[in-house]
Amino acid sequence: MKNIIVGQSGGPTAVINSSIVGVYKKAKELGYDHVYGMVNGIEGFIKGNFIDLDDYLKDKDNIELLRRTPSAFLGSCRYKLPKFESDPETYKRIFQLLEDNEIDTFLYTGGNDSMDTVKMLSDYAKDNNKPQRFMGVPKTIDNDLPITDHCPGYGSCAKYIATSIKEIIRDNESFNKSRLTVCIVEIMGRHAGWLAAAAALAKGDDCSGVDAIYLPETTFDLKEFLNLINDLKYKKDSIVIAVSEGVKTTDGRFVCELNDEDLAVDAFGHKQLSGCATTLCHIVAKETGLKTRAIELSTLQRAASHIASLTDIEEAEAVGARAVEEANKGNTGMMVTLKREQDNPYKCTTDVFDVHHIANAEKKIPLEWIDLENHQMKDEFITYARPLIMGELTPIFKDGVPTHLIRK
Amino acid sequence: MKNIIVGQSGGPTAVINSSIVGVYKKAKELGYDHVYGMVNGIEGFIKGNFIDLDDYLKDKDNIELLRRTPSAFLGSCRYKLPKFESDPETYKRIFQLLEDNEIDTFLYTGGNDSMDTVKMLSDYAKDNNKPQRFMGVPKTIDNDLPITDHCPGYGSCAKYIATSIKEIIRDNESFNKSRLTVCIVEIMGRHAGWLAAAAALAKGDDCSGVDAIYLPETTFDLKEFLNLINDLKYKKDSIVIAVSEGVKTTDGRFVCELNDEDLAVDAFGHKQLSGCATTLCHIVAKETGLKTRAIELSTLQRAASHIASLTDIEEAEAVGARAVEEANKGNTGMMVTLKREQDNPYKCTTDVFDVHHIANAEKKIPLEWIDLENHQMKDEFITYARPLIMGELTPIFKDGVPTHLIRK
Repeated sequence: MKNIIVGQSGGPTAVINSSIVGVYKKAKELGYDHVYGMVNGIEGFIKGNFIDLDDYLKDKDNIELLRRTPSAFLGSCRYKLPKFESDPETYKRIFQLLEDNEIDTFLYTGGNDSMDTVKMLSDYAKDNNKPQRFMGVPKTIDNDLPITDHCPGYGSCAKYIATSIKEIIRDNESFNKSRLTVCIVEIMGRHAGWLAAAAALAKGDDCSGVDAIYLPETTFDLKEFLNLINDLKYKKDSIVIAVSEGVKTTDGRFVCELNDEDLAVDAFGHKQLSGCATTLCHIVAKETGLKTRAIELSTLQRAASHIASLTDIEEAEAVGARAVEEANKGNTGMMVTLKREQDNPYKCTTDVFDVHHIANAEKKIPLEWIDLENHQMKDEFITYARPLIMGELTPIFKDGVPTHLIRK
Repeated sequence: MKNIIVGQSGGPTAVINSSIVGVYKKAKELGYDHVYGMVNGIEGFIKGNFIDLDDYLKDKDNIELLRRTPSAFLGSCRYKLPKFESDPETYKRIFQLLEDNEIDTFLYTGGNDSMDTVKMLSDYAKDNNKPQRFMGVPKTIDNDLPITDHCPGYGSCAKYIATSIKEIIRDNESFNKSRLTVCIVEIMGRHAGWLAAAAALAKGDDCSGVDAIYLPETTFDLKEFLNLINDLKYKKDSIVIAVSEGVKTTDGRFVCELNDEDLAVDAFGHKQLSGCATTLCHIVAKETGLKTRAIELSTLQRAASHIASLTDIEEAEAVGARAVEEANKGNTGMMVTLKREQDNPYKCTTDVFDVHHIANAEKKIPLEWIDLENHQMKDEFITYARPLIMGELTPIFKDGVPTHLIRK
C-alpha cells in the first residue's frame, strides 16, 4: 500500500480546497492507493481523525463543487506543534499513525505557522531515519510567505476586495457633496499590506478608485491623515479609504489601540485586531464633523468563493499537485512555490524550496511599489497583482445560492 | 415635444438602475422624444440638473452595463419635499422646469419617503390643474412598502445576504469546538426584518443555516439570547446568528443602545443605527467567555450587483416600464406594484395603486411566518422569498473586476 495524507491549517481561504483537488487528482494519477484527509489538521490527525477522500471525490461533480467551496473542507486548526524536546510523545504518536496506515507522504496546506510544522516533522524524520516525506503547500490570503512569487488564496481575496471596494465607491458616491460620507474600509493583513493594497485594483476607466490606502509597511500619521480628509472634502463628493487592520502609528501602537481597547491574543501570540476603521471613523467624525462609515470586510473577504479568481483556483490546484510529485520523487522538508515566468502575458509555474528558509519569515510589499506621498500603489504593484485576480469560475447555483461540498 | 424625466431617491440598491433601463426602453417605444434623468433626484432637478439619457443608452452595450451597475447611476438624494404651504416657491420652480422642458411625465424611483414626494407633487398638479403626471416606481432593499408583493432591490440584497451568510457559516465552522466562535451578523432593516430573514435562505442540503435570526418584528430578550448561546455552545462547533440592525429590547431601546452610544439622526429623523452586532458580541464575550466576531454587511449588501438576482433585475425593469405606460395612458399619483400570481412556478406581474395609500406606511413580516420559539423563519417565508433571489446576470469583467456604466 502507498498512501498519502493532506491537512489544512490556519485561516481558511476561498481556494484552499482546490489544493486538495490538486493533491487528490495527482496522487491518483501517480498510483497512490488511499488519499486521506486530516480532519481539523494535525490536531485532528493526532487524535486519529481522518477521512478517505475517495468517499467524496470519486464523483467528478463533487470535484467541481469542491473547487467552488470556500473555507477548509477538511476542517482547519491553529495547533502549534510542540518542539520535540518538550513533547516527544506527540511525535511518536504522529509517526505511529503514519506507519499504522501505511502513509508515506504528509502534505500540509497553510501559511507561516503551518510551514513550521512541516519543518519540525521533516527534521524529526531525518534525525530518526524515518522514511516519510513532509511537504508544505502554500496557502494564505496574507500573501506574506517569502520565496514564492505569491500565495494561493491571495488572488481570490484580492478579487473580492477590488470588486467590493468598487461597489462601495459606487454606493458612497450616490449622494452629492451635501451628504459627503467618509467611508473607511478595513482590510485584513496583520503585518503585510498585500490585501489592503488590492483596493487599488478597483480603479479603472469606470472608477476613480480609493482616495488613499494605508499599509502596515509604512507608519500611520494621524495628523497627516486628518489633513488629507480635510483637503479631500473640498475636492470630492465621496471619500473612500482603504486601511489595513495592521497599520501602526509612529510610536508602534496599532491604530485600533488609539481607543485603548483590550486586545485578545491567539494561540501563536498574535494580537487579534479589529476596529481600526471604526476607531478612525470616530476620530474623523469628531475632528472634522463629517459623516463617516466604517466597513470591515472581515471573514467575507476570505470566504467569498462566489467571486474567486480562476487563476488563483488553478494555481492552488497546481501547488497541491506539485507537492505530490515532489514527495513521490522522494523529496521532503520543502514547500512548493509559485514562480512567475513573465508578466504579460502572465505565465506562472511551480517550483520547490527548502522549508527551513520559509518558516516564520514574512514578505512585505516593497517600499518602492508604494506611492508614499499620495498613499496609492504604483504601477509595479498593479502589474504584480492584476494577473492574480483574472478569470472566474461561475458558482453552481441551487435555489438561488452557490452550492458547496461538505463532509457528512 | 413629449418628454419624460426619471429620478432616483433614497438609499441605492443593486437594481435601481434597471428601472431606468425599463423607463428608457418603454418611453422610446411609446414615442417620447427625450428621456431625461434627474441628477441627484429632485434635489438636483430643482437646481436644473438633469441629463438626456440618449447620451448614454442609445448604445445597447451601455444598457447591458447599466443593468449590472449598482447604486444610483443618476445620483440619489434624501431631499424631503416641503409642504406646499411652507414653501410654494419650490413647487412653482419644479413645475416651471417641467413646462420649460416640455416634460409631461415625472417618474420617481424610491421607497416610502420618495412616494411621499410623488403624492405631494401629484396633489399639487391636481389642485392647480397642471397636466403633468407623477408616478412612483418602487425601490427599497427594505421591502417594507405596502400593497406591492415585494420591492425591487430586495431580491438582490437577499441573494447577497444568503450567499454571504452561507460563506460566513462555512468559514466559521472551519475550526473545531476548541475554537468555537460566536459570529453575529448585522443586517440592514430599521423597522422590518425582511433582509435579516433572508439569512434563512442560506440553509440547504449543504448548509445547516444560521442558529437564530432576530427581527425587529419581535422584541429582543437579552437573557433568553444568552441562554440560547449557552445551550448552543454544547451542541455545536460553530454558532452564527443573524440580527437585524433594528432589533429592540422590551423597553423599546435599540440593542445597539445597550452600550449607550450616541445615535446620529438623518434628514428624516430616523436614527442612524450601527454596532448592534458589535454590542451583542461584547455582551456575549463578557457573559460566556466565548470568542466572538461581529460582521456588519453594511453597504456591501445593497451594492453587490456582482451577485444580483436576475428575477430582481427583470422586475425592476418591468416596474419602470409599467410606470411609463400608465403615465402615457394619463394616470398620475400612483405607484407601480408587483403582483404575485403564483408561487410555484413563480409568476409575477405589475399593477398600479393609489400612492396616497402607500406613502409612509410600512409592511412588516407577518408574525405567523416567524418561528418565534426557535428564532427561525417558517416555510411560508421561504416560499415567499426564494423565488425573488433566483437567477443571475453574470457581470461583464474587465481586468478582473465587474465593469459599470457611469456618468461622465
